[in-house]
Amino acid sequence: MVVKVYVDYRSQPCRALVLFLKNTKIPFEIETIDVIKGDNRKPEFGKVTPLQTVPAIQDGDFSMGETVAIIRYLATKYADLVPDHWYPKDLKKRARVDEYMAFHHTGTRGGCCDIFVSEVLIPLFSGGKQHASEERLKRDEENLTKQLDKLENAFLQDNDWLAGDDISVADVLAVSEIMENTVNGRDVTEGRPKLRAFVDRVKNRLNPAFDEVHEAVDAWRDSY
Amino acid sequence: MVVKVYVDYRSQPCRALVLFLKNTKIPFEIETIDVIKGDNRKPEFGKVTPLQTVPAIQDGDFSMGETVAIIRYLATKYADLVPDHWYPKDLKKRARVDEYMAFHHTGTRGGCCDIFVSEVLIPLFSGGKQHASEERLKRDEENLTKQLDKLENAFLQDNDWLAGDDISVADVLAVSEIMENTVNGRDVTEGRPKLRAFVDRVKNRLNPAFDEVHEAVDAWRDSY
Ligand SMILES: N[C@@H](CCC(=O)N[C@@H](CS)C(=O)NCC(=O)O)C(=O)O
Ligand SMILES: N[C@@H](CCC(=O)N[C@@H](CS)C(=O)NCC(=O)O)C(=O)O
Repeated sequence: MVVKVYVDYRSQPCRALVLFLKNTKIPFEIETIDVIKGDNRKPEFGKVTPLQTVPAIQDGDFSMGETVAIIRYLATKYADLVPDHWYPKDLKKRARVDEYMAFHHTGTRGGCCDIFVSEVLIPLFSGGKQHASEERLKRDEENLTKQLDKLENAFLQDNDWLAGDDISVADVLAVSEIMENTVNGRDVTEGRPKLRAFVDRVKNRLNPAFDEVHEAVDAWRDSY
Repeated sequence: MVVKVYVDYRSQPCRALVLFLKNTKIPFEIETIDVIKGDNRKPEFGKVTPLQTVPAIQDGDFSMGETVAIIRYLATKYADLVPDHWYPKDLKKRARVDEYMAFHHTGTRGGCCDIFVSEVLIPLFSGGKQHASEERLKRDEENLTKQLDKLENAFLQDNDWLAGDDISVADVLAVSEIMENTVNGRDVTEGRPKLRAFVDRVKNRLNPAFDEVHEAVDAWRDSY
C-alpha cells in the first residue's frame, strides 16, 4: 500500500515530512495542496483532516494531520522501513527526540514562523496593502531571538544534532523552519555559529534530497 | 523508584501532568518550583532541564522537560501502571491522541496562553506598570477564537472527548489551559456549548483530583 501525502512545498512541516520519507523505504506518493490558493479549505480535504492544514496523510482507510503525529504513526507502522536513528526505538533516545518535537511547535517554529507571517505573508495576502506594525515586528523579533538562543545554548550546546548522536526527525523539522526565512533574505543563523554549522551539517548529510525539497522555497526567494 | 516531578501548580502543563499521574499507579513525588520567583532559572534546575521550564522530571539518572514528551516517556516505561485509555497502545487510537497533542501547543495552549500573558502576566511582572496594547489584545483574541473554534468544530464535533471514545491525556492538557483563563474571569467556553459540556465532563470524571490540582488557580482567581 502506498501512503498518500498531501503537501505544499512552500510549507515548512511539509518539507520536513517529505525529507524524512525520502530517507526511509516507506512507499509514498505526493498530492499537491496549494495553500495560497486555498486548496486546504476545500470540503474534500476536510475529510482527510478536519484541521485543514498541511501536511496530512491518507493510509488506506486511515487519515490524519499534524506532522509530528504523522511521523510517529508512520515510524511505528512501518518500523522495519525506517532507519532507527530517524526516530530511535530506545526509550531514552526516543524521549530526547520527543522532547525536541514538543519544544519545536512554539520554539523553533514559533520563533521562525511568526516573523515570516509578519514580514512575508501579511503583505502577500493583502496584495501589498498591509504591513505588520513596528510593535508586532518587535514582539516577533524578541521571540525569534529567545527561541533560537535555546537551540544555540541548550539543544546544540554539546551536540552535533538536536536530539542524540545522529540525525533524527528533530533536525529536519528545525531546518525546514530556518530555511523558510531565507525567502525574505533573513539569515536566522547569523551570530549563532553552532546553529549555522548545524544547518550546513543537515544539508550536507541529506543532499541531493535537501535541495530537491527546497526547490519551491529557493524559487520563491529568487522571485521575491 | 519514585519519579521526582518538578511543578508549579499555577502552570497549565504542570497541572495536566499531575492530573495524569494521579490517575495512574506510577510512584511520584512533587518538588515545587516557583516560576514567578524564578526558581526555574536557577542553575541546579538547569541540570534537570536546560530548557528551564516546568514541568520537568527526574527518573533515576534520567531527567527531561516538555510535558508531552514526559507523558510519552512515562506511559512507555511504566506501561503496566497506566490505564490504557490515557494513552492507548493501539496504533490508530494513539495516533489520534498524538494528533491532538501536536495541535495542542499552538492550538489550545497557543490561544489560551497568549491572551493570559497579555491580560494577566504583563501587568503582574511589571508591577501593574505595563499593559498589553489594544493591537496586541486584538491579535490575541482573534487567535483564541480561531483555536477554540477548532476544538468546538473539529475535535469535539461528534465526540465526547478530544481524541477517541474515552478520556485521554489530550483532555487534561486542554482543560488545564482553559482553566488558567478563569484567573482573569474569562470563560473561554462561552458561546461554545460542546466545549463547555466537555470541560464539565472532564471535571466530573476526575474529581476530587481535578479540584485538588486546581486549588492554586482557584486561589489566584479569588485574590485577583
Ligand atoms: N502543527 C501543524 C502545523 C500545520 C500548519 O500550520 N500548516 C500550514 C502550512 S505551514 C497550513 O496548512 N496553513 C493553512 C491554514 O492554517 O489554513 C503541523 O505540524 O502539521
Ligand atoms: N512546551 C512546554 C511549555 C512549558 C512552559 O512554558 N512552562 C512555563 C510555565 S506554564 C514555564 O516554565 N515558564 C518559565 C519560563 O519560560 O521561563 C511544556 O509543555 O512543557
